[in-house]
Amino acid sequence: MKGKHNFSAGPAILPREVIEEAANGVLNINNTGLSILEVSHRDKDFMAIMEEARTLVKELMGLGNEYQVLFLGGGASLQFAMVPCNLLIDGGTAAYVDTGVWAHKAIKEAKGIGNINIIASSEADKYSFIPKNYTIPADANYLHITSNNTIYGTQMHAFPNSPVPLVCDMSSDIFSRRVDFSKFSLIYAGAQKNMGAAGATMVVVKESILGKTGRKMFSMLDYQVHIKGESMYNTPPVFSVYVCLLTMKWLKKNGGLAWIEEINRRKAELMYSEIDRNSLFTGTVVKEDRSWMNATFLLTKPELETTFNTMWKEAGIVGLKGHRDVGGYRASMYNALTLEDVQALVDVMKELEKKNG
Amino acid sequence: MKGKHNFSAGPAILPREVIEEAANGVLNINNTGLSILEVSHRDKDFMAIMEEARTLVKELMGLGNEYQVLFLGGGASLQFAMVPCNLLIDGGTAAYVDTGVWAHKAIKEAKGIGNINIIASSEADKYSFIPKNYTIPADANYLHITSNNTIYGTQMHAFPNSPVPLVCDMSSDIFSRRVDFSKFSLIYAGAQKNMGAAGATMVVVKESILGKTGRKMFSMLDYQVHIKGESMYNTPPVFSVYVCLLTMKWLKKNGGLAWIEEINRRKAELMYSEIDRNSLFTGTVVKEDRSWMNATFLLTKPELETTFNTMWKEAGIVGLKGHRDVGGYRASMYNALTLEDVQALVDVMKELEKKNG
Repeated sequence: MKGKHNFSAGPAILPREVIEEAANGVLNINNTGLSILEVSHRDKDFMAIMEEARTLVKELMGLGNEYQVLFLGGGASLQFAMVPCNLLIDGGTAAYVDTGVWAHKAIKEAKGIGNINIIASSEADKYSFIPKNYTIPADANYLHITSNNTIYGTQMHAFPNSPVPLVCDMSSDIFSRRVDFSKFSLIYAGAQKNMGAAGATMVVVKESILGKTGRKMFSMLDYQVHIKGESMYNTPPVFSVYVCLLTMKWLKKNGGLAWIEEINRRKAELMYSEIDRNSLFTGTVVKEDRSWMNATFLLTKPELETTFNTMWKEAGIVGLKGHRDVGGYRASMYNALTLEDVQALVDVMKELEKKNG
Repeated sequence: MKGKHNFSAGPAILPREVIEEAANGVLNINNTGLSILEVSHRDKDFMAIMEEARTLVKELMGLGNEYQVLFLGGGASLQFAMVPCNLLIDGGTAAYVDTGVWAHKAIKEAKGIGNINIIASSEADKYSFIPKNYTIPADANYLHITSNNTIYGTQMHAFPNSPVPLVCDMSSDIFSRRVDFSKFSLIYAGAQKNMGAAGATMVVVKESILGKTGRKMFSMLDYQVHIKGESMYNTPPVFSVYVCLLTMKWLKKNGGLAWIEEINRRKAELMYSEIDRNSLFTGTVVKEDRSWMNATFLLTKPELETTFNTMWKEAGIVGLKGHRDVGGYRASMYNALTLEDVQALVDVMKELEKKNG
């Protein structure tokens, strides 16, 4: 088990102590003698897990009772549909910023419901930067943005002041830094990157923005139905919610978002300073929009690919292959990845340069 | 850990060896040194798990290549919406048999899409039997039935010969007995009762019935999108799928559906013969429709409730409380529950009669 450095883009690395506690819960939850997999979601053991998870989200984000927290199944991709279903009024328009494939998919689904205004896009530049200085139409029903773009390695380091409800897909950088979360009316995030195990999607929503469309929709797509059911309208993804809780408890115990932000800053600085210093590597996106979560880079001498791949694999590094749309390499540095893991990769990059520079 | 007898209605008991292997996978999947929770769903380790799970479903059911198998998020409740979305043609009608709360919810969602014809219902009799001898309209787009009704403890022991595509919610008795699965065009089942861990829903669909509505729908609701994505259009509920695979392998290794059917028959016979013999208990549904999965019964002397509750809890029995709609008791006897577990309950019932009969 020693020496694995997991740079996977998601599902992704989790804290070892979370994994061990999750495994214990599979064997015996709360000393009940039963597995977390075989207790009713209406039993007090799981009810307490769900309630603590919902509470902890707001605590970590510093949000008050005007927000509701849900853990739903179906993935962030289902949120691409649920957001316009719940927020886009008949005849109204929703504004979207297009920063990559996932934003693009969110736009596609929303178009099935109504008018979509793409107010900014970096598509023509292969999504290598985050658009800024766009005007947000004051009559839009909402503005949808994507805080981090895993495929390209870009991230919003500042958020717009929006005159309309701000909706954000934070799937790939949730809980990675301090953010003024009160700027947002709705935040959603698939759990499988920074927050837990695949199968659960967290939704944080300001209740006052709901119920305005008059649209008849499927119960499972209706945030108000899930709020009324206290995130248990139907059987929730029990185990995934449990892993989210364990991860949030780990985060809180260690110092919360301020603590993890500092670690993530240092990891990103170490990674990008090597990409910039090492003559054999080059980044793929504009520097000011570089993601702290996913560093994307190319070899300047593509003929070294096989050599480099062998070297990092021998160093116990996994998950470094770039997305097929960008090529090259992608080092995903989610919360549970340590500075030592990044150093292991940097060491291999230095070694490659020493031998082939 | 000794002596727990888990009669929970769902999430429910799983084979102990499955739970132990699942816990091992959380710690270290396939000796990769990584947790199943932190490997990419596009990695070969998980791709192989998903493929084997999809193949094993068809093998256990004896179905051929005209059927596709999906493992989706969102629960069976999302299928209540997906079924009419994908199968109900504009201006057409779908036929439903109403055998309980879950069938009722499926009907409610389908009404959001088009015309629904409830061709049979036992609602007026508190769902205490399974309607039979109804006529299936030959021009319906499909017929929807629910094979087992957890709340009431009824089960279909025979299936209709349908002139239109037969759709069945098998959430609570999937893989519990031999069935001529080729009678069905679409079968769905939440995993959390007989098949695995909450968070995944299995869908088996005959591909030829799809693509006929011309309806524009959200990608996540479109079976054809998921089929094209080989059940990985988006990140699937990884761990839940893994637990499904482990449970299906356990089933296959021991003899498949013929083996489990015999065990389930013996458990049901033991349980119901005690309910019928013991003067202190009475069943709640007509005998011919009694479920092998969920036996519902009442005390004939309600004043013994506290005594009985204390006795079964002391015997290590959990999850016996009846659903609030029916009251009394519900003994759920899913595949992983053993004859010895049922005997433990029967012993307590006999003991109660000895002391208070």
